[in-house]
Amino acid sequence: MTESLTDRLASLGLRLPPTPKAVATYIPAALVPAEQAAGLVFISGQLPMVEGKLTATGAVPSKCSEAMAVEAAGQCVLNGLAAVGGVLEHRWDRLIRCVRVGVFVQTEPGFDGAHRVANGASDLIGQILGDAAPHARAAVGVTSLPLDAAVEVELLFAIRPE
Amino acid sequence: MTESLTDRLASLGLRLPPTPKAVATYIPAALVPAEQAAGLVFISGQLPMVEGKLTATGAVPSKCSEAMAVEAAGQCVLNGLAAVGGVLEHRWDRLIRCVRVGVFVQTEPGFDGAHRVANGASDLIGQILGDAAPHARAAVGVTSLPLDAAVEVELLFAIRPE
Amino acid sequence: MTESLTDRLASLGLRLPPTPKAVATYIPAALVPAEQAAGLVFISGQLPMVEGKLTATGAVPSKCSEAMAVEAAGQCVLNGLAAVGGVLEHRWDRLIRCVRVGVFVQTEPGFDGAHRVANGASDLIGQILGDAAPHARAAVGVTSLPLDAAVEVELLFAIRPE
Repeated sequence: MTESLTDRLASLGLRLPPTPKAVATYIPAALVPAEQAAGLVFISGQLPMVEGKLTATGAVPSKCSEAMAVEAAGQCVLNGLAAVGGVLEHRWDRLIRCVRVGVFVQTEPGFDGAHRVANGASDLIGQILGDAAPHARAAVGVTSLPLDAAVEVELLFAIRPE
Repeated sequence: MTESLTDRLASLGLRLPPTPKAVATYIPAALVPAEQAAGLVFISGQLPMVEGKLTATGAVPSKCSEAMAVEAAGQCVLNGLAAVGGVLEHRWDRLIRCVRVGVFVQTEPGFDGAHRVANGASDLIGQILGDAAPHARAAVGVTSLPLDAAVEVELLFAIRPE
Repeated sequence: MTESLTDRLASLGLRLPPTPKAVATYIPAALVPAEQAAGLVFISGQLPMVEGKLTATGAVPSKCSEAMAVEAAGQCVLNGLAAVGGVLEHRWDRLIRCVRVGVFVQTEPGFDGAHRVANGASDLIGQILGDAAPHARAAVGVTSLPLDAAVEVELLFAIRPE
C-alpha cells in the first residue's frame, strides 16, 4: 500500500465502518473479529451489516436478488477492512496485501452464480487496495448463514511486523 | 499457554480423546489429522466422534436439535485439540494460540443459527485455552457432511518452533 | 520433492494443464489463481475444467454420480497443481508440501459421502506428490457451485523462498 487507503476510499465515495462486532446477542469471549499469526491476519466471516442491520437476507436468487447479493458482498468487504484496520491501528502502510477471500452465498439448489456474487467482493477489494488487492478465492453456495444473511465473506491479509 | 492444559481440562471434567483417526473404512495415505507449515498447524475437519461413533447426525433443526449440535461442536473441538496435541507431542507450552475456527453445520434451508451452533466450539476453546483462545471464525450452514454428521469443525493453531 | 514431479506425472499417464484461468466471461482484475504470503501459496478454488469445459456438473448423487465426482476432484487437483507450478515457475524443488485441501461437493440433502468424493483429490495428491502429499482436509457438501460444477477444490502449499 504505497497510497493512502483513506484517500482511496474517499475518492470512491466510501468510508470504513467502525470495527465490526460479532453478530447476535451472545458473543463468546474467545471469538474476535481478527486474529493474527505468522504475519497473517485472519478476519472472521463478515456479514453485510450496516449499523447493526443486514442489508441482504435470504437465499439467492428467489428471496435475495443476485444484484443485491453482489452489493452485499462489497459491504462484507468494508466490514472486513474495518476489522483489519483495527488490528493495524489504521497504520495502513503495514498492510502488505489481501491473500485469500472466502465467499459463502446463501443459495437455492441450481444457482450457478456464486462466483458472480463473489465478484462484488473481489471488485471492491481491487478498487480499494490497488496493487495489494490480488487474492486467491473460493466461492460456494451454502444452505444457510447466520441471521439469514445472504452472503458471508472471510478475508486473509498479509501484514508487516510493527 | 502459561497454564497446564491438562489441569484445565481436568478442572472442566474433560479429557482429550486419543489422536483422532480420519473417518470411514478407506483413508487416503495422504490425508492426515494435522499438518504444519510456517508456524501454523492446520487440523482436518473434525466430526463429533466419540470412540468411533457420531454423537449428532442429520440436518439442524429438524433431525438434529440445535442444542445437540452445539454440544457436538464442542466434541469436534476436543478431537481437534487431540490432533494438535499429537503434533506437539503433548508439549502444550509450544502452543501459541488458536487462530481460526471454521464451523460447518448441516442445516435445512431457512435455519438462521449457524453462529449459535459454532458458539459451542468457541466457548469450549475459550474454557480450555484461556488467553490462547481468541480466534477468528467462519460459521456456515451446509447441505451435507461426511457420514451424515451434524457438524464439522476445522481448526488452525499457531505454535512455537521446537 | 526429491523426485521430479514431471517424471512422476508421466509415470501416472498425467500431464499438468496450462495454468488455469478463472472461470466465466468477466474476471475481476484482483482475482488470481494463486497468491503467496508467509511461505504459503493459496490456490483459488479449482473447478473440474478441461480445456475450458466442466467434466462434472450438477448435484451428487442424482445429477452427477459419486464416481464422476471422485474423478472430477482429481481434475481440480491437476488444475491446482498447474496454478502452483505457475507461481514456482515450474521449479518444483521449491515445493515443500501440500498443507491443506478444502473440498466442496455440490450435493443433495442426505448425501453422506463428501469425504469419499474428497478422496479423489487426496489420492491423486498422494500419487503425484509422494512425501510432500500429506495434508489436512475439510470436506463438505454445498448447495451450489460456480457454473453448476459438481466439485470445487481449494489447495494450500508450503514453498521455499527463491
